[in-house]
Amino acid sequence: MTLNIGVIGTGAIGREHIRRCSQVLQNARVVALNDINRANCEQVVNELGLKAEIYDNAHDLINSPEVQAILVTSWGPTHEEFVLAAIKAGKAVFCEKPLAVTAQGCMNIVEAEIAAGKKLVQVGFMRPYDSGYRALKTLIDSGEIGEPLMLHCAHRNPEVGDSYTTDMAITDTLIHELDVLRWLLQDDYKSAQVIYPRKTRKASSHLKDPQIVLLETVKGVRIDVEIFVNCEYGYDIQCQVVGESGVANLPEPMSIQTRSAAKLSTGILTDWKKRFIDAYDVELQDFINNVLSGNMTGPSAWDGYAAAVAADACVVAQNNGEIVPITMPARPAFYH
Amino acid sequence: MTLNIGVIGTGAIGREHIRRCSQVLQNARVVALNDINRANCEQVVNELGLKAEIYDNAHDLINSPEVQAILVTSWGPTHEEFVLAAIKAGKAVFCEKPLAVTAQGCMNIVEAEIAAGKKLVQVGFMRPYDSGYRALKTLIDSGEIGEPLMLHCAHRNPEVGDSYTTDMAITDTLIHELDVLRWLLQDDYKSAQVIYPRKTRKASSHLKDPQIVLLETVKGVRIDVEIFVNCEYGYDIQCQVVGESGVANLPEPMSIQTRSAAKLSTGILTDWKKRFIDAYDVELQDFINNVLSGNMTGPSAWDGYAAAVAADACVVAQNNGEIVPITMPARPAFYH
Amino acid sequence: MTLNIGVIGTGAIGREHIRRCSQVLQNARVVALNDINRANCEQVVNELGLKAEIYDNAHDLINSPEVQAILVTSWGPTHEEFVLAAIKAGKAVFCEKPLAVTAQGCMNIVEAEIAAGKKLVQVGFMRPYDSGYRALKTLIDSGEIGEPLMLHCAHRNPEVGDSYTTDMAITDTLIHELDVLRWLLQDDYKSAQVIYPRKTRKASSHLKDPQIVLLETVKGVRIDVEIFVNCEYGYDIQCQVVGESGVANLPEPMSIQTRSAAKLSTGILTDWKKRFIDAYDVELQDFINNVLSGNMTGPSAWDGYAAAVAADACVVAQNNGEIVPITMPARPAFYH
Amino acid sequence: MTLNIGVIGTGAIGREHIRRCSQVLQNARVVALNDINRANCEQVVNELGLKAEIYDNAHDLINSPEVQAILVTSWGPTHEEFVLAAIKAGKAVFCEKPLAVTAQGCMNIVEAEIAAGKKLVQVGFMRPYDSGYRALKTLIDSGEIGEPLMLHCAHRNPEVGDSYTTDMAITDTLIHELDVLRWLLQDDYKSAQVIYPRKTRKASSHLKDPQIVLLETVKGVRIDVEIFVNCEYGYDIQCQVVGESGVANLPEPMSIQTRSAAKLSTGILTDWKKRFIDAYDVELQDFINNVLSGNMTGPSAWDGYAAAVAADACVVAQNNGEIVPITMPARPAFYH
Repeated sequence: MTLNIGVIGTGAIGREHIRRCSQVLQNARVVALNDINRANCEQVVNELGLKAEIYDNAHDLINSPEVQAILVTSWGPTHEEFVLAAIKAGKAVFCEKPLAVTAQGCMNIVEAEIAAGKKLVQVGFMRPYDSGYRALKTLIDSGEIGEPLMLHCAHRNPEVGDSYTTDMAITDTLIHELDVLRWLLQDDYKSAQVIYPRKTRKASSHLKDPQIVLLETVKGVRIDVEIFVNCEYGYDIQCQVVGESGVANLPEPMSIQTRSAAKLSTGILTDWKKRFIDAYDVELQDFINNVLSGNMTGPSAWDGYAAAVAADACVVAQNNGEIVPITMPARPAFYH
Repeated sequence: MTLNIGVIGTGAIGREHIRRCSQVLQNARVVALNDINRANCEQVVNELGLKAEIYDNAHDLINSPEVQAILVTSWGPTHEEFVLAAIKAGKAVFCEKPLAVTAQGCMNIVEAEIAAGKKLVQVGFMRPYDSGYRALKTLIDSGEIGEPLMLHCAHRNPEVGDSYTTDMAITDTLIHELDVLRWLLQDDYKSAQVIYPRKTRKASSHLKDPQIVLLETVKGVRIDVEIFVNCEYGYDIQCQVVGESGVANLPEPMSIQTRSAAKLSTGILTDWKKRFIDAYDVELQDFINNVLSGNMTGPSAWDGYAAAVAADACVVAQNNGEIVPITMPARPAFYH
Repeated sequence: MTLNIGVIGTGAIGREHIRRCSQVLQNARVVALNDINRANCEQVVNELGLKAEIYDNAHDLINSPEVQAILVTSWGPTHEEFVLAAIKAGKAVFCEKPLAVTAQGCMNIVEAEIAAGKKLVQVGFMRPYDSGYRALKTLIDSGEIGEPLMLHCAHRNPEVGDSYTTDMAITDTLIHELDVLRWLLQDDYKSAQVIYPRKTRKASSHLKDPQIVLLETVKGVRIDVEIFVNCEYGYDIQCQVVGESGVANLPEPMSIQTRSAAKLSTGILTDWKKRFIDAYDVELQDFINNVLSGNMTGPSAWDGYAAAVAADACVVAQNNGEIVPITMPARPAFYH
Repeated sequence: MTLNIGVIGTGAIGREHIRRCSQVLQNARVVALNDINRANCEQVVNELGLKAEIYDNAHDLINSPEVQAILVTSWGPTHEEFVLAAIKAGKAVFCEKPLAVTAQGCMNIVEAEIAAGKKLVQVGFMRPYDSGYRALKTLIDSGEIGEPLMLHCAHRNPEVGDSYTTDMAITDTLIHELDVLRWLLQDDYKSAQVIYPRKTRKASSHLKDPQIVLLETVKGVRIDVEIFVNCEYGYDIQCQVVGESGVANLPEPMSIQTRSAAKLSTGILTDWKKRFIDAYDVELQDFINNVLSGNMTGPSAWDGYAAAVAADACVVAQNNGEIVPITMPARPAFYH
């Protein structure tokens, strides 16, 4: 049983997913490609030796009888349109983040999916597929550290380019925490606040870096996330859960321990692409398996919507310095 | 050269300090004792085999020509009176925290000391004498991690009695961070905010536990301190400094690493008295040495005042949920 | 391009490899099965939903035109016969350890393969495919710790059954170190010595446990391997390389760090099957890829022979308590 | 109660001990000095502001009525003579290692002390006073890891001068392990073997470095000690105890953990003097306290003898490459 996949958008992440489907994962085959630049598709076909048809129009790809499932890895602002089209065609669709560039766009997808009566959408949030976060969730769920009360998190990048703006700390960086922490805690956000520490001299003049985001959940859990995208020393993702009777930390990535030059050291990654590389494989294999079995279990359109609502509130909090309430509608029964 | 010390207050901490001066430290001798209960003094004299005179009145002890320096370890509300008397007598005085129970009381001492024209007062803040905090300060000052931008701290106790109230999280617990972080950063506080996470079921009904205190310094450093006094698992003091180019953590106390029962473990202390036990020795020896050399360098009356001002603001912030400004007068030249 | 595989032996490890080829790996398909008990084959076919032919005779499977490559996962004493038959048929063969039950049997395979003029054999040593050992080899080869001088290793199991005998510490347990350390150091063994520490009371009366094996390599590196198969606390593989200017340790498996019950802990595995589970996947995918590309690069028949020669010397050393020389013939150019 | 101490030998370690007695420890006073070079004594008296008499003859110092206890910190070959003289004078004596330069010399001291009928001698083995080794012993004695079966140890120095010879790896370096491991295990040695790994290019041409010493105890515990005195990276003392149900490691010295330049690091000491600096204080205070209380409990003349016997066997093993038996006479009741 092999799933025939069509891919819309053959930029960097699109190519990575095509390579995955072709060379790493089981039971999938990329049979159709579309890109605003047809030459990109041709290059991918040649590089990977694909037997895939190139479509000049994404909607033709979506509606092609050869295509059983869609990967949307095109430019963010086009996601909503293509996901809605896939739903209309009754086909499963994996959409890289963001699901849509506005919360309302995400809600449009939620409503279309409910109307279709069948779960078809998986959003490309890969952290719930990371073995470290999974182990952390298993430990929390085991009750070994009691009920979670606080989370202390950090999301640190060695550096960012000049085009990275203050709000991207939320929409490009924190967005991963906004997704994975909801999943980890099985909880929703209630308020957000942003505070600005002393700025690092390594950041662009227009960028506020670092930032600290304070989140409150419906159950009362308090979360602080340090976002520091010019930290210099490495790509470092920290998550500490403080429970009623103990504390648990997200594992550090595996590393050789050395004793050298008066230091006992392990390595820290510097390239974000290596940090969750295994999680991308697991995520996409899960999508393939779920489509083939007819039971979608990954991050849903509702999860995409929830992250978008929280991100919007955080951006408001960045600007007004206040504690901004986050209001979510009740989760539709469809997503239970 | 031996310093003749008089001790006011022979409760638990008084006895510990008497034992230190008699059995551990160099160049000191306890020659005079006072307590509101004379029998306590007699017991200490017998237990430790002291040759010390017992005074029924603390002021007589302070003014005795036999006594060269004073330790004030009596009930907190009496501290201000005895410290002022020691200053008036022109004698060096080591006063356990709090220096006074109000910021105004601390300021009275500051003004008396300035008027006396000579540094005489050391406040009993022992963390700057802890080898871990000292190593952390040395590392910060070396520039190895760049300018500090953020501090993530935790102060966790396994449990507290029913008499521990919500404001004591500030006045008894956070007070140590309020002192040591000023010293670590050589900076002053500018604002305070307190947030209340989901409450642990292990705390008394009247106690908000845990709490998170957010501090901002004049230089813009942002500090978060988790205070969790019923954390169950141990007595655990954490301090992480995030600088422009690296991160440094307060060392964990030395511990055997074991591999046993499917766990690779080191021990965590459960008794706070063991955590800073060496620091108490260093602190008091430093007082003795400084009195003998005539150059007081330990935590000063000004440091006691600064901690009191910050603590007052934190208590206000506990109650109003707002960001409370902290205003300190300019540091008098006397304390530079 | 899909490799059609025939599997001889459908016991525990055979089934695991069949599952891998069918459900995890790329470009492979199990098309033929053989077992001394035909019912075992039928069960596997049913459980995994295979479209595979069942052969009553292993040689018929080997010679079937449907079968392009062979996995030998049958009873150890049969390995030599089936591997030789595969070579005779000109087909690639992956053989679980041991390649043969004697060093002479391994040499027979080496000679047959050389005579065939083409590398066809991969031995099932999976540790060189473990990401930890690979990282360790990369670090050694980088020169970061200088030339290796000593290795301190441990191979610990929580417990073994009563059927485990003293010599199995070499032939079943140490055999993995004998393989992986040759690969890690790109060196051969020169002598072996075995010493017996105080025996644990947890071991069977007939079993000497723990044991320490001392190995010397041709380049003069000294290796000590502690083998302790009733260590109780976990399945724990340690490898420390001491070089001229630094020391490197095999990484610990990823684990959540917790603070709980006065302990700061990470978990230790107790089940050996989980320790190298990823390495098995990589190992077999490598075999598949190599067969398809016509370039065999995994552990060779010569590696199987070298491990067997070293193991024989260790068993002699177990019995005579002496330093036993290990003599290897020169490596044939065929295996360079 | 203050102990009047006379010090014979005012070289580096002598001065350190004089400083300790004068400025750090309680209840001691250095009242007499002797050195083969009187000017050395004068310099120490001036530097430390001592009120001490300088003796031109060590025996006059030993016999002076002003002197209650003796520290022998002179050149090794003179130790035996001065310790015997102190015993004859009925005075307690702390003697830096070696107690005597031959095992027979140690035995002469043992016999003299027994004849004197009173414990008077403490040998300067400081590791049993190190808080890490003490914690390790406490853990072993608690039974938490079961009966010890094996010890894996390392004694690494960054570098040694050209005057350091191969036998000094035993007599100057391993000697500390020979003492502390007997104490840790409460056991005696039964045999020794020395093996020479590939030599580091950083060592002098005449020096075999590293070396591995294999020891067997009477109870059957097997110990391996790596001695590597040109390891470059730091001064590093490792001791791992493998018991029947768990493993325990000597703690690493306290150190700040940093995240910097893609490394998560703690520091390793490079100067041996810092590693056991606290242990020297505890050791000498213990001597002072024991003399004052009349109950000598530190490393005894018998311990000095036992270390010398074991060291002699190790030197033989260095030269003949064989397993050399170590035979100790029964411990006299006097030393139980």
